[in-house]
Amino acid sequence: MEPVLNLPLVLKDCDWIVTQDPERRVLHKASIKIDDGKIIEIGQNLISSRKDETMDCHGKVMIPGLVNTHTHLAMTLLRGYADDLELKEWLEQKIWPLEKRLTPDMVYSGALLGCLEMIRTGTTCFVDMYFFMERVADTVKEAGLRGLLSHGIIDPPNKADKEKDRKKTLALLQYVKRLGEPRIRFILGPHAPYTCDQDTLLWSKEIAEKEDTIVGIHVAETRGEQAKSEDNRKARVVDYLDKIGFLSERVLAAHAVWLTKSEVKLLGERGARVAHCPVSNMKLASGGVAPVPEMWNAFVPVGLGTDGPASNNSLDMFETMKMCALIHKAYRWDPTIVPAQKVLDMATIDGAKCVRMEKMIGSLEPGKMADIVLLDLRDPNMVPVHNAGTLVSDLVYSANGFNVDTTIVNGNVLMLNRDFRTLDPSEVVQGVTKSIKDLVDQ
Amino acid sequence: MEPVLNLPLVLKDCDWIVTQDPERRVLHKASIKIDDGKIIEIGQNLISSRKDETMDCHGKVMIPGLVNTHTHLAMTLLRGYADDLELKEWLEQKIWPLEKRLTPDMVYSGALLGCLEMIRTGTTCFVDMYFFMERVADTVKEAGLRGLLSHGIIDPPNKADKEKDRKKTLALLQYVKRLGEPRIRFILGPHAPYTCDQDTLLWSKEIAEKEDTIVGIHVAETRGEQAKSEDNRKARVVDYLDKIGFLSERVLAAHAVWLTKSEVKLLGERGARVAHCPVSNMKLASGGVAPVPEMWNAFVPVGLGTDGPASNNSLDMFETMKMCALIHKAYRWDPTIVPAQKVLDMATIDGAKCVRMEKMIGSLEPGKMADIVLLDLRDPNMVPVHNAGTLVSDLVYSANGFNVDTTIVNGNVLMLNRDFRTLDPSEVVQGVTKSIKDLVDQ
Repeated sequence: MEPVLNLPLVLKDCDWIVTQDPERRVLHKASIKIDDGKIIEIGQNLISSRKDETMDCHGKVMIPGLVNTHTHLAMTLLRGYADDLELKEWLEQKIWPLEKRLTPDMVYSGALLGCLEMIRTGTTCFVDMYFFMERVADTVKEAGLRGLLSHGIIDPPNKADKEKDRKKTLALLQYVKRLGEPRIRFILGPHAPYTCDQDTLLWSKEIAEKEDTIVGIHVAETRGEQAKSEDNRKARVVDYLDKIGFLSERVLAAHAVWLTKSEVKLLGERGARVAHCPVSNMKLASGGVAPVPEMWNAFVPVGLGTDGPASNNSLDMFETMKMCALIHKAYRWDPTIVPAQKVLDMATIDGAKCVRMEKMIGSLEPGKMADIVLLDLRDPNMVPVHNAGTLVSDLVYSANGFNVDTTIVNGNVLMLNRDFRTLDPSEVVQGVTKSIKDLVDQ
Repeated sequence: MEPVLNLPLVLKDCDWIVTQDPERRVLHKASIKIDDGKIIEIGQNLISSRKDETMDCHGKVMIPGLVNTHTHLAMTLLRGYADDLELKEWLEQKIWPLEKRLTPDMVYSGALLGCLEMIRTGTTCFVDMYFFMERVADTVKEAGLRGLLSHGIIDPPNKADKEKDRKKTLALLQYVKRLGEPRIRFILGPHAPYTCDQDTLLWSKEIAEKEDTIVGIHVAETRGEQAKSEDNRKARVVDYLDKIGFLSERVLAAHAVWLTKSEVKLLGERGARVAHCPVSNMKLASGGVAPVPEMWNAFVPVGLGTDGPASNNSLDMFETMKMCALIHKAYRWDPTIVPAQKVLDMATIDGAKCVRMEKMIGSLEPGKMADIVLLDLRDPNMVPVHNAGTLVSDLVYSANGFNVDTTIVNGNVLMLNRDFRTLDPSEVVQGVTKSIKDLVDQ
């Protein structure tokens, strides 16, 4: 199926529009006009002309499409396969042996399922790191989403094999260029400072600069990682990354749990960004909680990530928003910390900053791309809405991804009133079933 | 609307049935037969006769209806009204002033909305403490749910007024008796050891014994409560409750966060039960995490509660299950603690034990009441199901309440394929809208 055509479209008479603009305005009974994939007008007195297609948004709240700043989409295939285990056992005995048997077609089917779930739950843009990423790019193209895609680079023990992942990275770059689809961006993906050497990290940085893109990397997810860094490199992880000249405004550090205040400050000074993954950190019991308020004080843009669906196990960013607000309150014994508005910022405009796309997405403003999500205010958990001031609280504490009923990217309607328009759910599930059979059951 | 009639009904060809029976069997491609509100047969080779009504359950997973062991249902009206505040400020400046203005009709409309949300998200039985509880009983009758209802008793500063809440409690008892609806049970609700004196606590216990019912009470939700108890009574909260002879198998202690090991042991020795409310505890930043593994070691039955929708803000027990598993893992730095099976137990059979109804509900076994929930396995987050062993993990970590598509209580279908059968959602919302207008906006 193809996305619906890019007609001028007016989303009319929305009960509420949560703009996430610089004033964080929430508009009551307002409309939005989109054309050529962009928002061209927004307001309470917007008038549609006869030639505009219109969509009645009565009984709905409109928000910017959510940005998932860290996941491994194709791991939907391994969702639920092995839970309640120590990280090391989970990886070495369960996940890695299966991942070795993954084929490009399996990754395609798993990523397509991930796209389906993201459309269902209101995520319009995501950052992915995995392998066979050309096939993930295919799913993003097909689904109509916005994706920033990296081939995960892990240096092999044998130095001579190091070229392999670099070649795969450059192949992905060429593939994305050939696709010529502005929704799909190539990014770099050195896996982590403990799986990549200095050479690989700096090579990633160099390509990112040349291609004007970003570098996703796992940073300080566990305490063990910091301990090993101090043992092996006589430096904490972020200090090491800075010493070798890796840190910059192009770095998107996933997790960033086990940081000292001086490491947080360093991230801020270098302009690096963080993808905070509270659900995954809790489930894998990384211990501790990422120092998000300290990151804000250091002017580090912080987005939210679900992490891969095998360590979460959902891709629902609404759930991640709530879990984020709650774990910080619990951890700090402070119910006022990480309030709803800041959490919604993380999932929208701050997520957009994390991928350096804040001029394009992350809020509903004229000139920005029409990445738009509508939630159904008739669902019982969305009742009541007291006023414009409490609506953001409702989105973070009461809503879940299944309240989303319409998802729009680039002005294309990917789901309308809970009907998928670009993907056929039964075909997606068939593909996954076949992959699982080949992967696990053989 | 009336619940559908009690015909013999066969739920046929379910992909999976998670029985929660003593062997925790998960049946593949199985059916269940219900008659006169009870489960009469369950298995893979069950044959329906021509006179049975049948429901095709292909593509679905069946679980016992979930038991919410602690909430204040009518607080749906205050959902989202005031978040991200200190408990004291939240209660004294926001919640209590509004609660003073609540009328019986408002409580009715709020509780009805709560019933709607519980049906939507797979909760079939709940424990409630609030006021104007006759009107809550009306909603439970109308909705077709199972409810254990208490009038919350708070001793007034003026001793002479103490009779008021006792009278209201006894009036509720009489009202429930007159209703004669076995789904609705009267229980006692002394609010907390710091709001009720010894006399009131023991009176509650006495009535509970006389009426063969249970006593719900808030216990040790905050550290401050323990500190005050040590100051004022020279005893920790649970030690005090035991000293006055209050503790017994009829006590259901909500929260139970700030306990010493010896208090946990005491709860176990006296046979008391606990309603664990992880989401509320996190959101209100009670600090600490209830010592659930220690409670298990002391043989304390532990159920799950959402707490009131103003301090959560949802009634989705699936979300509470996931949050429960995750907060314990995060808090203990141990991903193996509080595993999925134990969490599902808490939300089903252990919840049933908390309300002393484990012979009637909490699992799918012949002879038990037909309180049944079906989830749609075609929803993207429910794909894939690897095998019977991973299914429980999928329910706890991947599912959310909106995957529920059918909810049955006592053999009556309250929601079928996401269509409500006993309540009219638009009428419910209209009622809430009117109440909010009278309560907040006037």
